[in-house]
Amino acid sequence: MSTSATAQSEERTTDESARIEADVRELCRAAKAAARRLALVGDAERSALLRAIAARIRQDQARIRSENEADVAAGRHAGLTSALLDRLTLTPTRIEAMAAGAEAVAALPDPLREPMNEWTTQRGLRIAQVRIPIGVVGMIYESRPNVTIDVAALCLKSGNACVLKGGKEALRSNAALADIVAAELVAAGLPAAAVQLIRSTDRRATEAMLRQEESLDVIVPRGGPGLVRAIAEHSRVPVIRHYEGVCHTYVDADADLAMAADIAVNAKCDRPGVCNAMENLLVHSAVARPFLDVLAPRLLEKGVELRGDERVRALVPAARIASEEDWRTEYLDLILAIKVVDSVEEAIDFINTHGSGHSDAIVTRSRENADRFLREVDSAAVYENASTRFTDGYEFGFGAEVGISTNRIHARGPMGLRELTTYKYVVRGQGQTR
Amino acid sequence: MSTSATAQSEERTTDESARIEADVRELCRAAKAAARRLALVGDAERSALLRAIAARIRQDQARIRSENEADVAAGRHAGLTSALLDRLTLTPTRIEAMAAGAEAVAALPDPLREPMNEWTTQRGLRIAQVRIPIGVVGMIYESRPNVTIDVAALCLKSGNACVLKGGKEALRSNAALADIVAAELVAAGLPAAAVQLIRSTDRRATEAMLRQEESLDVIVPRGGPGLVRAIAEHSRVPVIRHYEGVCHTYVDADADLAMAADIAVNAKCDRPGVCNAMENLLVHSAVARPFLDVLAPRLLEKGVELRGDERVRALVPAARIASEEDWRTEYLDLILAIKVVDSVEEAIDFINTHGSGHSDAIVTRSRENADRFLREVDSAAVYENASTRFTDGYEFGFGAEVGISTNRIHARGPMGLRELTTYKYVVRGQGQTR
Repeated sequence: MSTSATAQSEERTTDESARIEADVRELCRAAKAAARRLALVGDAERSALLRAIAARIRQDQARIRSENEADVAAGRHAGLTSALLDRLTLTPTRIEAMAAGAEAVAALPDPLREPMNEWTTQRGLRIAQVRIPIGVVGMIYESRPNVTIDVAALCLKSGNACVLKGGKEALRSNAALADIVAAELVAAGLPAAAVQLIRSTDRRATEAMLRQEESLDVIVPRGGPGLVRAIAEHSRVPVIRHYEGVCHTYVDADADLAMAADIAVNAKCDRPGVCNAMENLLVHSAVARPFLDVLAPRLLEKGVELRGDERVRALVPAARIASEEDWRTEYLDLILAIKVVDSVEEAIDFINTHGSGHSDAIVTRSRENADRFLREVDSAAVYENASTRFTDGYEFGFGAEVGISTNRIHARGPMGLRELTTYKYVVRGQGQTR
Repeated sequence: MSTSATAQSEERTTDESARIEADVRELCRAAKAAARRLALVGDAERSALLRAIAARIRQDQARIRSENEADVAAGRHAGLTSALLDRLTLTPTRIEAMAAGAEAVAALPDPLREPMNEWTTQRGLRIAQVRIPIGVVGMIYESRPNVTIDVAALCLKSGNACVLKGGKEALRSNAALADIVAAELVAAGLPAAAVQLIRSTDRRATEAMLRQEESLDVIVPRGGPGLVRAIAEHSRVPVIRHYEGVCHTYVDADADLAMAADIAVNAKCDRPGVCNAMENLLVHSAVARPFLDVLAPRLLEKGVELRGDERVRALVPAARIASEEDWRTEYLDLILAIKVVDSVEEAIDFINTHGSGHSDAIVTRSRENADRFLREVDSAAVYENASTRFTDGYEFGFGAEVGISTNRIHARGPMGLRELTTYKYVVRGQGQTR
């Protein structure tokens, strides 16, 4: 390329960047203005809106499916894996699940009505801590188009506006769903800008979102750890991180071994590709032989690849040696790393060192060891005698979830409606001055 | 400089940067290890530690003062303003206030014992949401050395470790105070690393803190808006922002004008240099003349410079014209911008557009207008018939404060002990699997 052609090309790139930035800024500003209005809307109206969206999803099923089929065809052409194509596909069952999900969120209690604190100060000021929406939630996600409706429903129910950025492979599906939400917002006399989809598939549009600290109040990224880390690193908007789950099950010397085996099989095999699946199994040396004698064949039969330390390999010849990296890896697959430990203390230390602070379980009949484990393991969810697979908004009883936070501030673990709220202090006086 | 000298100098700079980064990383890691131990210490022990620190502050008063005098002398030599020198100086009264403050924090209720939620799920899992320390709190602050003790006391009481980075002008004072805390930690059998001061005065040390996302759980910056914005922009660690307060008082048509004048004078003049002081005054047109006739002379007498829109200038000839920039400026000084508005709606819109979401007040006898203002103004603290100066941890009854957050997530408004906690879910089952 000649120098002048390069300069022209650079200029075009700069213009294009500026245009993308301006578009995203404008869209986020409109969302902020819409959020102010939405925050004043009562629960009856917000819930009716969600039911109308559900009805329209059912009505427009044919259009949703045809847009989705176009995405799937393009994805197949682009060589997406069959797993990704499966996640992308909206079957009639999945479309009905989206509609039913929006209705289920509508039926949940109003998160903005929950009482918080109220007190009178020494100076006679009456202070009420009142739950309010966060404002504008930015959501960055991949492949599954149903996230568009799930997140829109949770945000609208909690009085928040949202700006959605889905994966480019799902753009037509997401656009069809976002159009339905916008149409129902308008039909309800509410601003369409309350739920907006960024339709540019340019990477710079996502980057521009991270700079809208004047309009976006929080960003929730859901996707691979690489995506989430890059966003957390570059965002000026506060981020609620959804990192990986390197989850453990520790089988104590006092465990009911049959129960422990059922829990371990469930935690590993029920759905290995999700963040609350078990990646590391710790077994107390006193029960390692009888336990692994029962467990290893069950896991191998289900196609699980076993890795272990030397003591495990002495008991389970089928296990490969585990590297230091194995203990920190979220396989998201039918692979399990197993280690023999000599005490509950060693298990706790191992988990606090190698885990990701997501979900970890102890199986034991010892009250003392259970209490110690539950107290000292520093994870969002700690379990006694249950599978880590229960870390989930529905299973916890929140009705739905935006995701599972690995943040330590604002929200930890399953993020439901309450985690989409913040508060303000309403102070009533009679002329007090300091 | 020859090329080889430049290369050598660059190499030295790189070495030095790497060394600073390594030092800060090591210190933050030690804090994280200490935090794990501290989280398991009971309230009685944490509170006894604070009382011991208070006693040692009184005992070591001579040493604290001599170190502080060295800082003050160096600051005077470096040409610090008298306001900064005043903030830097530790008088016997201020030293006693630090000790008494640590004792007051010790006497507060344990923030880790407060009940949160507990419920049983459909599958029979018993879930308890339990309050725990955040972990390691990074604090970046300027000039006033008493922040070192205030923050250490709040963090220790709430079971958190902390990494402190004070201003370089206060280094010797801060070091003397941090040494006292470390000595008392050791005397109590706790790790000295639970409270650490970064003693490098290199800017790169602060920058290195922002990259310790593996060890620091949150950073709380307190200082000028430039400092806070730079930290929020560059930090990989979640930041709880303490931005400026552009606070408003709106005097409604129905206000008790004598009360309104007292509140306005207090909000502007009591302590103009703090974030909860009033910067903009809005007056309803129906009462603008009688109100400003009373208020303007009182403010002028106290040395307040008045700025206003054209309608204000018609009533108060002493007022300069206010620019668009004035309405968004935190003066932190005896300057007030005044505007006449025609309705409570206009006041609300103005505040939501120009304010900083910190603290805003209405003075009125109208229940309807008060309720509307309190509901629609989107600020951390909204007041009816009281001075915005009450936005303060002590005045709110929190006993103490780390600062006043302008974040919308995690903590909003005064940050006390509870805002230094997070939670985990403790789940007890009887063998449940999904």
